[in-house]
Amino acid sequence: MGAKPAHSGICVAEGFKAAGTACGLKADGSLDLCVIAAEKRCAAAATFTTNAFRAAPIEVTMEHIKDGYLQAVVVNSGNANAWTGERGVEDARSMAGILAEKTGVDARDVAVASTGPIGRFLDMDKIAGGIAEAAGRLDREGCDDAARAIMTTDTRPKEAAWDHGDFRVGGMAKGAGMIKPDMATMLAFITTDAVTTPERLQRALRKAVDETFNRITIDGCTSTNDMVLALASGASGTDPDGGELEGALHEACSNLARNIVEDGEGATKLVAVRVHEARDMAEARHAAAAVAESALVKTALFGGDPNWGRVVQALGQAVKDIEAGKVRVRIGGITAAAAGEPAGAESGSLEAAVAGGEIGLDIFLGRGGAAIEILTCDYSYDYVKINAEYHS
Amino acid sequence: MGAKPAHSGICVAEGFKAAGTACGLKADGSLDLCVIAAEKRCAAAATFTTNAFRAAPIEVTMEHIKDGYLQAVVVNSGNANAWTGERGVEDARSMAGILAEKTGVDARDVAVASTGPIGRFLDMDKIAGGIAEAAGRLDREGCDDAARAIMTTDTRPKEAAWDHGDFRVGGMAKGAGMIKPDMATMLAFITTDAVTTPERLQRALRKAVDETFNRITIDGCTSTNDMVLALASGASGTDPDGGELEGALHEACSNLARNIVEDGEGATKLVAVRVHEARDMAEARHAAAAVAESALVKTALFGGDPNWGRVVQALGQAVKDIEAGKVRVRIGGITAAAAGEPAGAESGSLEAAVAGGEIGLDIFLGRGGAAIEILTCDYSYDYVKINAEYHS
Repeated sequence: MGAKPAHSGICVAEGFKAAGTACGLKADGSLDLCVIAAEKRCAAAATFTTNAFRAAPIEVTMEHIKDGYLQAVVVNSGNANAWTGERGVEDARSMAGILAEKTGVDARDVAVASTGPIGRFLDMDKIAGGIAEAAGRLDREGCDDAARAIMTTDTRPKEAAWDHGDFRVGGMAKGAGMIKPDMATMLAFITTDAVTTPERLQRALRKAVDETFNRITIDGCTSTNDMVLALASGASGTDPDGGELEGALHEACSNLARNIVEDGEGATKLVAVRVHEARDMAEARHAAAAVAESALVKTALFGGDPNWGRVVQALGQAVKDIEAGKVRVRIGGITAAAAGEPAGAESGSLEAAVAGGEIGLDIFLGRGGAAIEILTCDYSYDYVKINAEYHS
Repeated sequence: MGAKPAHSGICVAEGFKAAGTACGLKADGSLDLCVIAAEKRCAAAATFTTNAFRAAPIEVTMEHIKDGYLQAVVVNSGNANAWTGERGVEDARSMAGILAEKTGVDARDVAVASTGPIGRFLDMDKIAGGIAEAAGRLDREGCDDAARAIMTTDTRPKEAAWDHGDFRVGGMAKGAGMIKPDMATMLAFITTDAVTTPERLQRALRKAVDETFNRITIDGCTSTNDMVLALASGASGTDPDGGELEGALHEACSNLARNIVEDGEGATKLVAVRVHEARDMAEARHAAAAVAESALVKTALFGGDPNWGRVVQALGQAVKDIEAGKVRVRIGGITAAAAGEPAGAESGSLEAAVAGGEIGLDIFLGRGGAAIEILTCDYSYDYVKINAEYHS
């Protein structure tokens, strides 16, 4: 496809403006509200959290995207507006209404997203002020502020931008905790100026999300507020075929997903858990997730310990009829265990394989032909610190 | 039953002797091998790990207990003898053989257990020396040394002893990490001088384990080496009825299980997660485990944060068709959330409820009549430290 980064973020695609502001939801005064607005109604697609307790903004956005079109987005951080009942839904609806009033967009074409602690009502005076201010400063240069305004425990903004010649794809995401596969996922916003229909965009987005965001895990916890939203303005005049659009979305989602894991709460290492020779994709995913979510594996890797015993412990717990004699475990390409025994790797070689910032764990089940890669990170002192101190 | 502690440990029951020694498997020279021996063959019962990769000593003990009787036990810490293939099984069989030779017991009446890092071959010279030494020092006073010799990351030995008048029940256990429900469980040894059959003992043990050890979790990880073994010497001459025997075993297992959670790796708080009004026991267990295993809930409690938002997040992830409007969450008896909204608890009251060393989380699902309690602990800096530094 010859894709290469152009500008950063969601405004690389023609037809989009953004702005971020600090409306006071975050006690430290940092950016906590952003808006994205398109010149015209966009074909829209989204995937949402699979958590049963969907947050209020998820409910409202699901309602507004039903007809396949959206024109603007408002997002706040510092409060998830989750487990806030009917009042929460009214507040989310008001957020859409206020942005509609300030921009002339129909309120039913506004998506709403929130992220932060669960179980608090929004301060709507602050929100209203923030939306008014951000709407007044909408600009193609506003994407960096927008990406910062959706951060919670993230240490850095996460943006991606590709110029595919005839059309462009941009994106931004947040997420460092409450991240696990099989979500619809955390907050991510993708824009493109390609011409497409809501149906084709949804199909391409669903596939891209399943292969990227749904294959990362930080702590095994699926948020109540996860959402990936894609907007296509059509401003480029280019109508890429299904494969090209899928590839472009995959590239953007893959980059943002990897960014999220690299910025995992307290993370010091990126860990790629690859399961091979599984019976089917469900088994591959289940086995890979069991290893990627094991607190014992994650703390060992933080400690620089190539503890493959904990890897096989997790496998044996997850797949009850697995045979030790057929399983092989490689760490950084070095066979650590095979045929139910230690493989006798050269002393020090496995330690070296886990010493760096990126670790590859390849696990061969000897049961079939399915394979998957799940990205995760280690558990450090800072993981505990961040989650013990990030009070509700 | 009028049960009250008599002496400590497994030797409270008539007919049992024990000894512990340091044979050199642990680098720091602490106790790492113990033996238990009965005067006569005992009715025996056991539950074993459900991990697919059962360790070699588990295989050997399963074979030896088939006829329902055992007379002696040998246990080492410092090496799990797991993922050690055929050689591991031969080593475990040798452990039984050496103890048989030193005590005159039939090798097929010896149970073998191991705990420690996975994936290393045993140093059989050290093991043989240790068994010889311990067998030469068997004594009713040896139970405390035995309880110390099975420790790994445990900070203290775990023993229990009850005098039921006509008969006695004693026990010892180890475990601080790789602990989660639905195991058969970690290492625990129960002795009684009651008269019973292997069948009745197995039934009583299975019930007791299911209601105690299988309702604790520290890190969600089921070990390859878990085993609970009960031996009945019959030396008291008392043949308690089914209910009395079950009650006595339940009491012993419950005490040891709670001890394990209190000594959870890095634990600073004991957390009782009680799920009420579930549709059935499977749902109750699934929901309670989801909360008890949530890294976000556990780190929040370490930080003294009554973060019920993370509790509902875990519930909504685990039970996909749950209705927020019917769910209530109480922390320390105070309603924190109900009907999909914050319950408006008095400021500071929830913080006070999680400030102590014991925390009760009561979760009402509003779906049925099943209830369960699962015990867990918090995740602290020391949890990460212990598991990053306990190298394989």
